[in-house]
Amino acid sequence: MNIAQRLSGITPFFVMEILARAHALERQGHDIVHMEIGEPDFPTPPKILEAAARVLSDSAIKYTPAAGLPELRRAIATFYEHRYSIRLDERRIVVTPGASGALMLVMGLVLNPGETVLLADPSYPCYPNFVRLFGGIPRSLPVDEASAFNLSAAMLGAQWDASVAGIITASPANPTGSIMAPRTMQALIEFVDERQGFAVSDEIYHGLEYALPAETALKTSDEVFVINSFSKYFGMTGWRLGWAVVPESAIDGAERLAQNLYISAPTLSQWAALAAFDPENLAELEQRRRQFAERREVLCKGLSQLGFLIRAKPEGAFYVYADSSRVTEDSQAFAFALLEKAGVAVTPGRDFGAHHPERFLRFCYTASIPRIQQGLDRIAAFLNV
Amino acid sequence: MNIAQRLSGITPFFVMEILARAHALERQGHDIVHMEIGEPDFPTPPKILEAAARVLSDSAIKYTPAAGLPELRRAIATFYEHRYSIRLDERRIVVTPGASGALMLVMGLVLNPGETVLLADPSYPCYPNFVRLFGGIPRSLPVDEASAFNLSAAMLGAQWDASVAGIITASPANPTGSIMAPRTMQALIEFVDERQGFAVSDEIYHGLEYALPAETALKTSDEVFVINSFSKYFGMTGWRLGWAVVPESAIDGAERLAQNLYISAPTLSQWAALAAFDPENLAELEQRRRQFAERREVLCKGLSQLGFLIRAKPEGAFYVYADSSRVTEDSQAFAFALLEKAGVAVTPGRDFGAHHPERFLRFCYTASIPRIQQGLDRIAAFLNV
Repeated sequence: MNIAQRLSGITPFFVMEILARAHALERQGHDIVHMEIGEPDFPTPPKILEAAARVLSDSAIKYTPAAGLPELRRAIATFYEHRYSIRLDERRIVVTPGASGALMLVMGLVLNPGETVLLADPSYPCYPNFVRLFGGIPRSLPVDEASAFNLSAAMLGAQWDASVAGIITASPANPTGSIMAPRTMQALIEFVDERQGFAVSDEIYHGLEYALPAETALKTSDEVFVINSFSKYFGMTGWRLGWAVVPESAIDGAERLAQNLYISAPTLSQWAALAAFDPENLAELEQRRRQFAERREVLCKGLSQLGFLIRAKPEGAFYVYADSSRVTEDSQAFAFALLEKAGVAVTPGRDFGAHHPERFLRFCYTASIPRIQQGLDRIAAFLNV
Repeated sequence: MNIAQRLSGITPFFVMEILARAHALERQGHDIVHMEIGEPDFPTPPKILEAAARVLSDSAIKYTPAAGLPELRRAIATFYEHRYSIRLDERRIVVTPGASGALMLVMGLVLNPGETVLLADPSYPCYPNFVRLFGGIPRSLPVDEASAFNLSAAMLGAQWDASVAGIITASPANPTGSIMAPRTMQALIEFVDERQGFAVSDEIYHGLEYALPAETALKTSDEVFVINSFSKYFGMTGWRLGWAVVPESAIDGAERLAQNLYISAPTLSQWAALAAFDPENLAELEQRRRQFAERREVLCKGLSQLGFLIRAKPEGAFYVYADSSRVTEDSQAFAFALLEKAGVAVTPGRDFGAHHPERFLRFCYTASIPRIQQGLDRIAAFLNV
């Protein structure tokens, strides 16, 4: 059996290794503080569970239309009107199995083999893998605090050539939590639009913002592809439900591709997600957002005191991408040692790119404040501070 | 916005057009007999619903490991032992979002761009599209009643050249319902193994057999890739849950690819599916299988009386692929006219390939016997028999 060549370009995530080792230590009776997992610690909100229970009792749970339940597409369109004051034709909303399904759908729609896609480094590790999956070439552009860890139109100007077909960008971003200023976003999208490239805006962490709200790329252009999900802000990771917003001209192709790629997103999740927009549920989510905001303060302050540098204060998502170069020269070895010796799980920079990953660690504040504090205390002891 | 070239190779399914038109007619008050839909009409079995309700009340519904809940992988391995007397290392079982997710995973694992994959014509329309998705070239080999609508080692012998990397085969097959004889299956797999190609055996209709049981390709080789799902036999379409069995050497790659492609399959569906193997549930499924068997008799007999030719009696799944050439020269025009004038929805051969599709119609027996009878009566009136 020969495995396809593309697999050699697809590296395992170190976070999965860390997680597996953490679970093994837990089975041996050790207590582990989890700050490696990009998943809210909150359970599925009660309103969603109630809606799912109602559906279970009166539905056959069959395939839905490939682009999603009409009711859900409409509810998402209404959500854009409420949250962003944008009117979207609901036919432009394609419901997907998670943001992963949306990324796959959109990459399948826009990318030809051999074309280059520009990405920020660091960024979400699946982006380059989705590009490779369809025969494209990811080109990662190093970003740092000078551009708030984001791509900028100036960077694109220096890199755009005949081989480049488009960009993938995220705001709030993983692993940095950075939010793109509306002006930066607008300049990026306009730059790409003018060159008839594609712009994919990953907005999966929208709603998890602690200073100013993130702006949707749809404010600038109707030609962008937006990725979003019920996983993070809405707290529905295991339900595997997301969506893409596609330009008018891509609706037909998106529907054909969805039929082939996944037939339809999980039915029960789709019905349950209708309750996500219920005012009572949104109030619960706001309550959770405030808790994330408090945790962020505790974690940022604690890490700074321990000698980590936070080069740009994270403004969204639930990540701190901390410069650990004063503490260690090798963040990966440090992460594994920290787990073994101190019982704290964090993710080494290597998962997110090649731009000095050895200097960075990602800390998630997907744990309660007492647990975060415990994690910080353990790190302090480990460092002998 | 430029849409990727691969989209031009991905045609819409006519069945979706038929379905959409059928729904439109229903909204206008017309009664439509549905024989176009490849989805069991039975609701989710009660045992599964009960299990899901229990999980809803006591679980946070988070991501699972990428390859699936360990409990579910183990339960599937045990199922292979019970049903096929095969012992499988459970690490070879990768839980996926539907058989679609399994096909995507396996094609991503084995296929390099530019390589050719051999398929039967007619077959499931997504196969060639998954091949195209990864830059491969589908080559469809016409099959007919001479080989019970299946590929054979002789056909592969005539077609295998340096460009061919592997095959996709299905038993029971869609749209023909044909089951491959164990000897044919063995010869096929051995042929491919000897050439170090890959063999993908789609076993999604296993369990829905009305004469002899279908044999799993795993009986012949540990190097095959098997696709299966909880959708058809287990009656869980909307739950979007399937699995792949991969060779030992592909376990690591499959896990890495799963992490990237879909993170994990829907969590609630995975827990609920554990109840699928409950003896009480298997008894319910056997009861349903018997109903399918009776419907098959009624439909085959009725269609024959109306002048349709059933060239090889379907032995599995829930499809009759009927030769309509005595009735019409253009099955596609016939299908649309039948829907408009007689209120019966069926799928034209075109969805399944290019080998005289104008001579064939696919009828699904995913409707009750009274409804099937009503459909037959309407066709009779339409034909003025």
